[in-house]
Amino acid sequence: MAEQLMPIISQYKASIDQDLLACIEELDIHEHLKASMQYSIEAGGKRVRPILMYLTTLACEGSIDKVKPVAIALELVHTYSLIHDDLPAMDDDDYRRGQQTNHKAFDEATAILAGDALLTLSFQCITNAVSLSAEEKVFALSRLSEVSGAKGMVGGQSLDLHFENTPIDLTQLEDIHHLKTGQLLVYAMEMGAYLAGAPLDTIDALKEAAKAIGLTFQIQDDILDVTSDTVTLGKPAGSDEANLKSTYPKLLGVKGAESEKQKQVGISRRMLEKAGVNETLLTQFITYLSNRDR
Amino acid sequence: MAEQLMPIISQYKASIDQDLLACIEELDIHEHLKASMQYSIEAGGKRVRPILMYLTTLACEGSIDKVKPVAIALELVHTYSLIHDDLPAMDDDDYRRGQQTNHKAFDEATAILAGDALLTLSFQCITNAVSLSAEEKVFALSRLSEVSGAKGMVGGQSLDLHFENTPIDLTQLEDIHHLKTGQLLVYAMEMGAYLAGAPLDTIDALKEAAKAIGLTFQIQDDILDVTSDTVTLGKPAGSDEANLKSTYPKLLGVKGAESEKQKQVGISRRMLEKAGVNETLLTQFITYLSNRDR
Repeated sequence: MAEQLMPIISQYKASIDQDLLACIEELDIHEHLKASMQYSIEAGGKRVRPILMYLTTLACEGSIDKVKPVAIALELVHTYSLIHDDLPAMDDDDYRRGQQTNHKAFDEATAILAGDALLTLSFQCITNAVSLSAEEKVFALSRLSEVSGAKGMVGGQSLDLHFENTPIDLTQLEDIHHLKTGQLLVYAMEMGAYLAGAPLDTIDALKEAAKAIGLTFQIQDDILDVTSDTVTLGKPAGSDEANLKSTYPKLLGVKGAESEKQKQVGISRRMLEKAGVNETLLTQFITYLSNRDR
Repeated sequence: MAEQLMPIISQYKASIDQDLLACIEELDIHEHLKASMQYSIEAGGKRVRPILMYLTTLACEGSIDKVKPVAIALELVHTYSLIHDDLPAMDDDDYRRGQQTNHKAFDEATAILAGDALLTLSFQCITNAVSLSAEEKVFALSRLSEVSGAKGMVGGQSLDLHFENTPIDLTQLEDIHHLKTGQLLVYAMEMGAYLAGAPLDTIDALKEAAKAIGLTFQIQDDILDVTSDTVTLGKPAGSDEANLKSTYPKLLGVKGAESEKQKQVGISRRMLEKAGVNETLLTQFITYLSNRDR
């Protein structure tokens, strides 16, 4: 089955890129705002969240067409969060994936508004979905606002900024990552399963898997920042050390971080097994992501 | 009937203030973000939008309890928009209603995130409403994302910034105000009527009335900026002139602006009559707002 994963990922990614652009293209709005929204959508990325949703749907024998608007909404939320996170008042990044960030390519005001517009559009993407019942839309919207708002992603970003120069312990570090990045991954797998009609205990196991997967990715990021080099990473290595940022290697050492990562990998494997999806492309994709070197 | 209006407005305002605060209070999130969200909610304001929704509901013989979550959601959107509009990259205001703006009382990053969180919370407010059916929620959410997003309020703010130092004509000025402030007023009256079960032609007439009311307020604002003084206004008079901002008096002269205002008042009266609500507190409230001197 291993040889199937990469072409399927490529195919999903192409379809997600196309759907996202169509979503902006059809907006009858003035060109400046539209160009700014398009810019960050086209800047691309791996589309990990919607692909994770599609592969979960596939593993639960659901219809990808049905979940599409929810997957697109999720990627719109992720895209808006990157635009706002990059702002001078937040992480102050001039480049992302080798391209100028939105506020550098346009200006700060436009970047703030493009982010606001993408967040708002994400909800519309779900309300307008013809593939979903009203009840499904309400549940998808309710959970989207939870995972992306003050109790989820925005809360995590706020905590992260708040503790930027303060020593924190492992529990606090986990809390930040659960909120800041984990919640959107939980949403991806939860919705993929829910809309495929999976039973509640399967959905719960997949949500637990997603939390462990989120931590795995984060620990891997932190380890690579210490052990890799700038050329391999495609972004400056060693930046966490320079930033006084709390990371797993700083709290546990590289070896301790490696073993924490293995613990999380173990949790996600057990949960995927519990959900009955351990022989699927979903599991392959997760393994693939956990082993990346950049 | 005139003597009833003011106590009812006060009573609605008190109930809206309380519901808004409860909405934030119940959030289990970290204190810094919560304090920032609370700050802008407590900074208050006239609560024109939710009161307009309640009075429309009343005029259409609907239940205020039913529309409450939608009215609260609308005020959350309005509050978030003020926080983001005040940011240094946008209108760069240090004070609003005599109080420091959010980014001055906290910091820019917190203000951006508090805005994002309030916008996201507004959708949750509707998804969680026990008073609404799934179909009503989806319609309320769909329209909320339209009126507040790129095709509505955010689009208007973006147009406004884009034309800040460019001479524009009357049509462009109307377009900006329709989007930037008119759309949320349309939503207030549309939802008040829709959730009260009003027939489609009543809803349509009320939406037209709301558009005219939005322009009336804006023209009144512009006229007061020229003809009033700083003490009466409670904010600097003459600021539009200093800002090179396009306004009705600049395009039409004060007399021309007055007559354009009367034209819009006429449209709103005819539309309220068409909707069969011209003998109601709603109409009194609109007259009251149009005649304000600050």
